[in-house]
Amino acid sequence: MSKIFAFSIRKDEEPYLKEWAAAHPDVEVDYTDQLLTPDTAALAKGADGVVVYQQLDYTPETLQALADQGITKMSLRNVGVDNIDMAKAKELGFEITNVPVYSPNAIAEHAVIQTARVLRQAKRMDEKMAHGDLRWAPTIGREVRDQTVGVIGTGHIGRVFMQIMEGFGAKVITYDVRKKPELEEKGYYVDSLDDLYKQADVVSLHIPATKSNYHMIDAEVIAKMKDDAVLVNVSRGPLVDTAAVAKALDDGKLFGFVMDTYEDEVGVFNEDWTDKDFPDPLLKDLIDRPNVLVTPHTAFYTTHAVRNMVVKAFDNNLALVEGQEPDTPVEVG
Amino acid sequence: MSKIFAFSIRKDEEPYLKEWAAAHPDVEVDYTDQLLTPDTAALAKGADGVVVYQQLDYTPETLQALADQGITKMSLRNVGVDNIDMAKAKELGFEITNVPVYSPNAIAEHAVIQTARVLRQAKRMDEKMAHGDLRWAPTIGREVRDQTVGVIGTGHIGRVFMQIMEGFGAKVITYDVRKKPELEEKGYYVDSLDDLYKQADVVSLHIPATKSNYHMIDAEVIAKMKDDAVLVNVSRGPLVDTAAVAKALDDGKLFGFVMDTYEDEVGVFNEDWTDKDFPDPLLKDLIDRPNVLVTPHTAFYTTHAVRNMVVKAFDNNLALVEGQEPDTPVEVG
Repeated sequence: MSKIFAFSIRKDEEPYLKEWAAAHPDVEVDYTDQLLTPDTAALAKGADGVVVYQQLDYTPETLQALADQGITKMSLRNVGVDNIDMAKAKELGFEITNVPVYSPNAIAEHAVIQTARVLRQAKRMDEKMAHGDLRWAPTIGREVRDQTVGVIGTGHIGRVFMQIMEGFGAKVITYDVRKKPELEEKGYYVDSLDDLYKQADVVSLHIPATKSNYHMIDAEVIAKMKDDAVLVNVSRGPLVDTAAVAKALDDGKLFGFVMDTYEDEVGVFNEDWTDKDFPDPLLKDLIDRPNVLVTPHTAFYTTHAVRNMVVKAFDNNLALVEGQEPDTPVEVG
Repeated sequence: MSKIFAFSIRKDEEPYLKEWAAAHPDVEVDYTDQLLTPDTAALAKGADGVVVYQQLDYTPETLQALADQGITKMSLRNVGVDNIDMAKAKELGFEITNVPVYSPNAIAEHAVIQTARVLRQAKRMDEKMAHGDLRWAPTIGREVRDQTVGVIGTGHIGRVFMQIMEGFGAKVITYDVRKKPELEEKGYYVDSLDDLYKQADVVSLHIPATKSNYHMIDAEVIAKMKDDAVLVNVSRGPLVDTAAVAKALDDGKLFGFVMDTYEDEVGVFNEDWTDKDFPDPLLKDLIDRPNVLVTPHTAFYTTHAVRNMVVKAFDNNLALVEGQEPDTPVEVG
């Protein structure tokens, strides 16, 4: 009987782990809420493979401690492999898998909801409600259907975002360096980013960060946008010159800003700053603005996505353990 | 040259009044921000008709004061005519119009956005952000696409709500006493309300209030719903037994509640209670809950709707003034 051991299982992951285990009565499944370290590796003793997910580095010592238990089949529940010492992993003969796509809809839905809230001035209204001011004027909303929504990037997430926006009745235009034929046929693409900035009431980014698109949204680009445009970044922080956005909000050029990723988020997001000095004044300023909605890189964080992360990682690990080809192997080395 | 005078024009209505006036250079348009009263009626002197909107009663004295100026053509920018003394209006020969539909999308969009926020636990996350707690767990979201959305009532608003929910990829089911053939063909209708309660993760009301549906959502009906259902009422307050909903939230039966209309809203909504004793403890309790989103009957309040209210009222009034049939006359008497 094969055995798989999972590290750092959170409460919200448990139901999906149990669901997977119930569907695989021929596999012994055990787990801990502890992170994988040189000390905790022994918890996996007797297992054929491990399922893992942590920000903590997978150091040579950690990998060695697993290998000492005879375990070299490791399946990540997330996408990122930057924190794995690949040279050591290769030396020890590790086989590794990850989960590259959890749920494009999680992120696309979040982007739409937050955009709609900014258009509606919902944060202002919520704050009025909380303080007992139940007057509706002048907190008037803009309807989503009245907007021209400019989508930069037509990958998985961008396309789901487009579909939802069209359900609202918005006009959708898009730009991508690689055009999808089925979208091109329907006339979604504009010829240039400048055309998109000129026409769009909402500009939403759905592209990876590269060296060449660092701060692609800067003061110069914002100046090309329509007055009262809404900027949406649920993709990657470095795409946006955040200080330039704050300035454009001060100037009244932008109507609002949706931000789930921030160029300086590492070490700040996913931490608790309650009763501590908040470490980033620009971020604090954005969080406090009535026309800005900040979330700490949580757009992905849905039950659907977490289920996929757990189930796909276990599926991958079982494939490794049984000597089959996993769906999403990671190149080791 | 015809002249139309408008009372109680708010700042957010001015642009649309000016837009209408610019499109009708042959009509003299003037207005005030003051309400129509026996005293202010004289401001309309010389006008052929008036455009109005106010909660204040149109008393016999007010109507007489208008008639004394020779004005008996009155166009409401809203739907409700309850506050007009119809007997007096008939006696004086008044012709009256209203605007029965401003924007179904305004209300449907609001219902969807708030539903999605409740599913996402967005209020909890926003509160964490505001206090500097930037940890994402355990504030996990449910995706809209994973929900079965039960829509009660398939009028204008219900149908737009369905369309937006389908854009998200949700499964939509519906119930109405009067079935629309085009929806029936596509298999949207369930056979009974009980079937809807049994299947739906989201139950959203889009029906008028009548004597027979008072408190149709009560403890007994909530017990029939799925565990962790979300209840949405952007239609009419009396449809819902609010105390029963609060109890079901306490019990963890309901996942959340979206409320734009409240059975006891008259005299409470659209008032400023800042620094005053809040008059309704049950309402205050709901406003303060992390899984309840209350808005003070503002779902309708968008630029699109306000434009329609202004433009359609002026169109109606011009028709009356020119002796033509207005689009939406009100029966006087």
